[in-house]
Amino acid sequence: MTTAEIGAELVSLCRQGKNMEAIGKFYSPAIESVEACSMPQFGQVQKGIDAVKGKNRWWVENHQVHKVDVNGPFPNGDQFIVQFSYDVTPKHTGKRMTISEMGLYTVHGGKIVKEAFFYTM
Amino acid sequence: MTTAEIGAELVSLCRQGKNMEAIGKFYSPAIESVEACSMPQFGQVQKGIDAVKGKNRWWVENHQVHKVDVNGPFPNGDQFIVQFSYDVTPKHTGKRMTISEMGLYTVHGGKIVKEAFFYTM
Repeated sequence: MTTAEIGAELVSLCRQGKNMEAIGKFYSPAIESVEACSMPQFGQVQKGIDAVKGKNRWWVENHQVHKVDVNGPFPNGDQFIVQFSYDVTPKHTGKRMTISEMGLYTVHGGKIVKEAFFYTM
Repeated sequence: MTTAEIGAELVSLCRQGKNMEAIGKFYSPAIESVEACSMPQFGQVQKGIDAVKGKNRWWVENHQVHKVDVNGPFPNGDQFIVQFSYDVTPKHTGKRMTISEMGLYTVHGGKIVKEAFFYTM
């Protein structure tokens, strides 16, 4: 699969809320995940598939998701960008909010080896 | 200025159509510009401020711009992403179209040293 094809299928799965399936299918065991800022629970950088799955599981368990818009992929070489807009209520605040962020994905050898999320807190 | 501050001012200038002013203000003389695919006039990669200004000048001279939406910046570390939506008519086709792309900018020493554009043709 090309980088753009991997991006298109990741977008399709994320639109269906099947993020864990996308991780299982496309992420390298050595995946590196970089947030725009440090998270109290996880820090800023997670390394390895177990850490990344753990972060995703935490997110799903701690947010009520009302709606997700997924736009993309926008490819360039071995990378692609995906735009995410989340209409969510974090369970610890109970305050409904919109989160808008960009994901930058890097593909190597047919697997996603790095994801970085771009946003302002 | 922080990377996010440079991003915010670049977005502000691009919203006003002052792209050349943003280039003059923030781009390194050694700027590298990477398109998602090769352009007949310029190839895929342009190096140096004169090549990048030349590409921008060509673009302005060869497109009638009806509307530009600029969304961002979305920062992470020394990089930020900006979303551009152009409602344009390329002069050589005369066919009005929408172009949607992401720009990924890398800052070093207070200057933008790389821009890469992500899109599907």
